[in-house]
Amino acid sequence: MNIAIIIYTLGRVIAIESAFMALPGAVALFYREKTWWVYFLVSFLGILGGMLASFKKPKNTQFFAKEGFASVGLAWFLMSLTGALPLFISREIPNYIDAVFEMASGFTTTGATILTDVEAMSHSALFWRSFSHWIGGMGIFVFLLAVMPMVGGVNMHLLRAESPGPVVGKLVPKMKDSSQILYVIYIFLTLVQIISLWAMGMRPFEAVCTSFATAGTGGFGIYNSSIADFSTLIKWNVTVFMILYGINFNVYFLIIARKFKSILRIEEVRTYIIVIFLSVTVITLNIFRMYDNFGHALTDAAFQVASIITTTGFATCDFNTWPSLSKTILILLMLTGACAGSTGGGLKFSRVLIVFKAIRQEINSFIHPRSVKAVGLDDRTVDKAVVKSVCVYFILFAFIYFGSVFIVSIDKYDMVTNFTAVLATMNNIGPGLEVVGPTGNFAGFNYISKIVFIFDMLAGRLELYPILLLFIPTMWKKH
Amino acid sequence: MNIAIIIYTLGRVIAIESAFMALPGAVALFYREKTWWVYFLVSFLGILGGMLASFKKPKNTQFFAKEGFASVGLAWFLMSLTGALPLFISREIPNYIDAVFEMASGFTTTGATILTDVEAMSHSALFWRSFSHWIGGMGIFVFLLAVMPMVGGVNMHLLRAESPGPVVGKLVPKMKDSSQILYVIYIFLTLVQIISLWAMGMRPFEAVCTSFATAGTGGFGIYNSSIADFSTLIKWNVTVFMILYGINFNVYFLIIARKFKSILRIEEVRTYIIVIFLSVTVITLNIFRMYDNFGHALTDAAFQVASIITTTGFATCDFNTWPSLSKTILILLMLTGACAGSTGGGLKFSRVLIVFKAIRQEINSFIHPRSVKAVGLDDRTVDKAVVKSVCVYFILFAFIYFGSVFIVSIDKYDMVTNFTAVLATMNNIGPGLEVVGPTGNFAGFNYISKIVFIFDMLAGRLELYPILLLFIPTMWKKH
Repeated sequence: MNIAIIIYTLGRVIAIESAFMALPGAVALFYREKTWWVYFLVSFLGILGGMLASFKKPKNTQFFAKEGFASVGLAWFLMSLTGALPLFISREIPNYIDAVFEMASGFTTTGATILTDVEAMSHSALFWRSFSHWIGGMGIFVFLLAVMPMVGGVNMHLLRAESPGPVVGKLVPKMKDSSQILYVIYIFLTLVQIISLWAMGMRPFEAVCTSFATAGTGGFGIYNSSIADFSTLIKWNVTVFMILYGINFNVYFLIIARKFKSILRIEEVRTYIIVIFLSVTVITLNIFRMYDNFGHALTDAAFQVASIITTTGFATCDFNTWPSLSKTILILLMLTGACAGSTGGGLKFSRVLIVFKAIRQEINSFIHPRSVKAVGLDDRTVDKAVVKSVCVYFILFAFIYFGSVFIVSIDKYDMVTNFTAVLATMNNIGPGLEVVGPTGNFAGFNYISKIVFIFDMLAGRLELYPILLLFIPTMWKKH
Repeated sequence: MNIAIIIYTLGRVIAIESAFMALPGAVALFYREKTWWVYFLVSFLGILGGMLASFKKPKNTQFFAKEGFASVGLAWFLMSLTGALPLFISREIPNYIDAVFEMASGFTTTGATILTDVEAMSHSALFWRSFSHWIGGMGIFVFLLAVMPMVGGVNMHLLRAESPGPVVGKLVPKMKDSSQILYVIYIFLTLVQIISLWAMGMRPFEAVCTSFATAGTGGFGIYNSSIADFSTLIKWNVTVFMILYGINFNVYFLIIARKFKSILRIEEVRTYIIVIFLSVTVITLNIFRMYDNFGHALTDAAFQVASIITTTGFATCDFNTWPSLSKTILILLMLTGACAGSTGGGLKFSRVLIVFKAIRQEINSFIHPRSVKAVGLDDRTVDKAVVKSVCVYFILFAFIYFGSVFIVSIDKYDMVTNFTAVLATMNNIGPGLEVVGPTGNFAGFNYISKIVFIFDMLAGRLELYPILLLFIPTMWKKH
């Protein structure tokens, strides 16, 4: 393991994060909040520390997959630890583990909160929470490489380790260009939503925070009622944008490149749209009798489906009170998550498609033992090694999931709470059911459970390996 | 597909099942129950029909894996449909779907019941339920081949499709001899338990029924309180025998062959024993304060762990009232199940071990991309195709599981009931939690849910493929 280059990389990440921290400081100044100095102090110290760590380029620039995983895993841990400092120092979240939970939830775009009263928070804290969603949604390394690319294989290995989805398609030959294109699309969509929400009647601060949390498919709200008290028009705006952010960003790249036919060929996106459509239909029919009119039922069904499938976690109603069928559909959507290459979390539709086809292939092999048919996606053959990796990924996910549930079950809550709380954090959704339902929060868990959730949120966002490998001793041996 | 030979095979199975049915008829005569003629009538007609179907050997004796799966899948369906007839005709279970549920639960050794009052049943019906566990535990084809083997590859393909576990190890070169050895061990263990239970104070009828249900790891009780009202000694007897039946039967074969060293090398059995020990310890400590003394807590913990891990489903207490930690452990044990090659159900310990090692291999491949290490079990290398099959099996299991939960959630019950009811039927356990907990039953579900459960019980017992393939249209195409 090349420790020197990892420290160098981490230095850059912390410097950039700390630079971002000046923004909530500015918000604090604007709203004349007393805690403005905290953000600037942490920001200044972070930039200084980060610059010192990455001041001198290490002589040994050897950088393999291993170093990529370690850098990304450690960077996200460090980001959460650093990002929690202003909330802790300003005493807005008096306990440091709670503050780290909140920021890990922010950067991983989970949206689970330990706050019992969001509305009691200052504007700067609310802004920092929502902004962390925006930073984490696209990824800090995508940003890092867009503004200051590194040498040789470094870029590749970092992006591979950070980006969600089983296959990272290169948009353009150069990684730097890919990162820039992704951020341009991301910023463009964010601006369009901010302006449209503002036009629909939100105050600018509300529009900015809501758009940040939507862009990252995060879900931190700035009101205790989440999005429930806004107009129907705004609810549909957020619904549509959540769905847009859950789509593989390759689609937007293809739109820019005017390759419209290629878009229709992306099986993952097709399936994603069909599943949303079917889920909304079934849930609307299932919850219809609880509502006074069809429109309200449809609005709530569509919003909740979009929020859960994209793993955002905003809510316009308490789906805890829905019938079992609707809740079961939501749990299934919690599992699948959104598309690969989007800002959404979860197992990802492309993975589900690949294992589904692997099952079909296995069944066929029983009926026709001699025929060998490969697994295909989007008219291309999926490499056998990828199929195996995806299958192993599902099972590894299950192992970590059940292991976490086991530890959390030592805490005091019921089974539905525990099972859905782990799912909600691991798949970066935010709310689960019962105690951690849309109107609840994670405040009541003990610190062991909270540390498990922090681990799960980071592991889920980074697709398990970058976090998991940190705990494998042989990983740290010298070359 | 060679339909002729499948009909020939099915005829033999039904004839044997019908012959077995004379036994509950004899029980009815012994207890002077009015319904004795029902068993003999169905038995006679079944033997007649079965003989007619298998009277003439088909000319085309082509028999491949495909025919094996179809024969086994259809045979188990037919067995449940036929076995349900006496219960239905005697009006002891007035609804035919309920009766089929009960017998599918019996043959698949699930032990889930639609009866609200077991004690209202006749002795013959209770005997037939328990006896169906005994028949299903070892498998009807194992019996069939032990008494009248068929030609060439037929035996192999039938045993492969029926026997539980990822790899069926041949005990001895000839399948016929293997089947006979297995049944000798099975009968021997059953007799030892009957006699020991009788010696410990059970009435002969109780001892026979309890031993049958233990041998098949089934779990149908003959009292509403299951085993709760028997003495502590009897509880420990059943605990020990459940654990013995959950062990890979190869162990007993190795004991007979005096190859004691080879036993210690079986990783699956070692892990199984360690997991039982740890689970009992943790649960005892967790439930201790609910009991008046340590002994009672230990007895109940050991009994419930043995009952759940072997997927038997007997109960000595209502574990629904235990804390979340204990319930979570039981749910994890419901998932893993017992050893391959035992009469127990579930995913099987050897499968869990194989996927665990596949995960370790995948993680190693990130750290040392160039090293290729194979997955090993019991000092032998597991073939890559087997590893892939096992991984796909887990995922297929998850797909069917969630699909079933989805359909059942349309019914009226809560989430914990639905999620554990499907798990309890698919892994052939019997009781789940809440409504289907140890003191509850499956009576309240609607018929669509019950049909899903029947499907799940059969699919679980036969390890998915024999049942699943029946629904694949290309399976039925001519060669």
